[in-house]
Amino acid sequence: MALPRKKVAIVGATGLVGIEMQAQLQGRKDLDCVLVASTARPELKVLALESAWQELKACDFILNASSNDVAQELGAKLGAHQVLIDNSSAYRMDPQVPLVVPELNSDVLKARPRIVANPNCTTILLCLGLAPLRSFGIERVTVSTYQAASGAGIKGMEELSLQLQALGRREAMPRPQVFPFVLAGNVLSHNTPIRSESLEGAGHNEEEWKVLQETRKILNRPDLPISVTCMRVPVERAHTESVSVDLMSRLSLSELRRAFQSAVGVRLVDDWEKNHFPMPIEAQNQDAVLVGRLRKDPSLEKTVHFLLAGDQIRKGAATNAIQIMDHFLSL
Amino acid sequence: MALPRKKVAIVGATGLVGIEMQAQLQGRKDLDCVLVASTARPELKVLALESAWQELKACDFILNASSNDVAQELGAKLGAHQVLIDNSSAYRMDPQVPLVVPELNSDVLKARPRIVANPNCTTILLCLGLAPLRSFGIERVTVSTYQAASGAGIKGMEELSLQLQALGRREAMPRPQVFPFVLAGNVLSHNTPIRSESLEGAGHNEEEWKVLQETRKILNRPDLPISVTCMRVPVERAHTESVSVDLMSRLSLSELRRAFQSAVGVRLVDDWEKNHFPMPIEAQNQDAVLVGRLRKDPSLEKTVHFLLAGDQIRKGAATNAIQIMDHFLSL
Repeated sequence: MALPRKKVAIVGATGLVGIEMQAQLQGRKDLDCVLVASTARPELKVLALESAWQELKACDFILNASSNDVAQELGAKLGAHQVLIDNSSAYRMDPQVPLVVPELNSDVLKARPRIVANPNCTTILLCLGLAPLRSFGIERVTVSTYQAASGAGIKGMEELSLQLQALGRREAMPRPQVFPFVLAGNVLSHNTPIRSESLEGAGHNEEEWKVLQETRKILNRPDLPISVTCMRVPVERAHTESVSVDLMSRLSLSELRRAFQSAVGVRLVDDWEKNHFPMPIEAQNQDAVLVGRLRKDPSLEKTVHFLLAGDQIRKGAATNAIQIMDHFLSL
Repeated sequence: MALPRKKVAIVGATGLVGIEMQAQLQGRKDLDCVLVASTARPELKVLALESAWQELKACDFILNASSNDVAQELGAKLGAHQVLIDNSSAYRMDPQVPLVVPELNSDVLKARPRIVANPNCTTILLCLGLAPLRSFGIERVTVSTYQAASGAGIKGMEELSLQLQALGRREAMPRPQVFPFVLAGNVLSHNTPIRSESLEGAGHNEEEWKVLQETRKILNRPDLPISVTCMRVPVERAHTESVSVDLMSRLSLSELRRAFQSAVGVRLVDDWEKNHFPMPIEAQNQDAVLVGRLRKDPSLEKTVHFLLAGDQIRKGAATNAIQIMDHFLSL
């Protein structure tokens, strides 16, 4: 006898992450999908949020790929038997709400929380890269990112695409609107606001602050030193990260390799001969996070370095949220 | 009375760095220039190396912007009163040869060495960023780079340009020849060979190894821990670097700012309000290295972070070599 189908709402269904969620749930025989966005799109079967509350009340799961404001409203109106899996940053640092990368801390889902926060994309990828090193004792993390335009949504991707067209055709560069400066042919400090001198982390941008705080929460290491520099590069949709980790114990290069080879959710791309390492154009459109350039520090015997690249929209957002839902379904 | 004009040869005059050297020496009334390359280009007044030895013997300064092999030959045939300023890596780690960034260690030129090595481009920029922090005691450096195509010469820049045209016009991507993979729309681990497991620094690429060794030599800190990750991004000609430094002493954000404001060769670009920080498109075609995103680590009170961006062909190569020559002229 077939199990009763569960009902899932995707709120923010017309954004990059919402569209990816739809694609990943297509063909699922165990689920019925309700699509919701700020504006109705009847041709896409998308309901307007303001008129969708009755439909939403009937859902088992609500996947929010919309704003923090919408997340707050969804949380406030959530029924007792519903689960909100929220990709906004509204609940991520709420001590009552678990922040979950299923490969790392899915155990917290056993308590059947009503709201689960999906971490920031850069954070999810970083945590998957750090997870295999936990058994060696992580003492300090330093990361510099090479983030794609997709992190700024469809408009960010379109802006980069138009700039690349202008650059390729040697035409006048259109005035940037999403990013503060031209991204094509350039590298930018991440376009989130800079934390003022009166705040902790003065001079950090909000993206860096999210990565720092969320990584600590996910790893359950509230005091772990994490140094983060978030940058945008002219890449379409996958993020790359250069990561250095100080460990409690010394480990050999082969132990380092084995740790990543046996890890869940990552795929080792580390061909020294061909200079073939994680690259955003290979990481895009797949769920696995590519890891490579594994090496020991030449001076510091307990320090290791690696690169990772992962699809910001998939494992960095939509895939992770759906994995959280699937964990609930398997409980 | 006018001083007698000095004679300068540019060897490798038709490469990116050689062309930049010519541009910078144009109009100098104190110098006569001889242009040399592997192949004669009469229309450009460029002599072929094999037939230029008599001309070279008459030069006071030889600026080599050609290969290591040519550098070795020039060094072997150097006359007693000539000075070779070499931009190849042939002599950089030779203990008899000074490796000079004039803002940092021009004092070594007082001994009038016959050969002076010009450091790797990424190294020069990094050293200019580290110099203002020396008075606080540098204990450890971690750097991830965002390097331009120009580091691979004219062919590297042309390859990126053709790829950007294909990307912008949505045409088929030409097969990469200079870089091992497509660079446009992508991020690559640096395209130098990876050091094998039998070598110190196994898993590092040769670019990283140069930056590590050369920075130690320039700062005269043979054991300084320096962790380097060298990456290529689809940028034309200026390199960007994300730098973290552990210091011996704690310093405030305003002390950090003052250190960079008063430093020679760098220009502070650090506008928190406008999210305006060092960017390669602003660093290109100028000699100053842009420094910004100054901030203290939120967990480690003696650790600071910053970004820098500098023109790889100018201060990263040609300008630095000419500054070395000018130091000799002022002795």
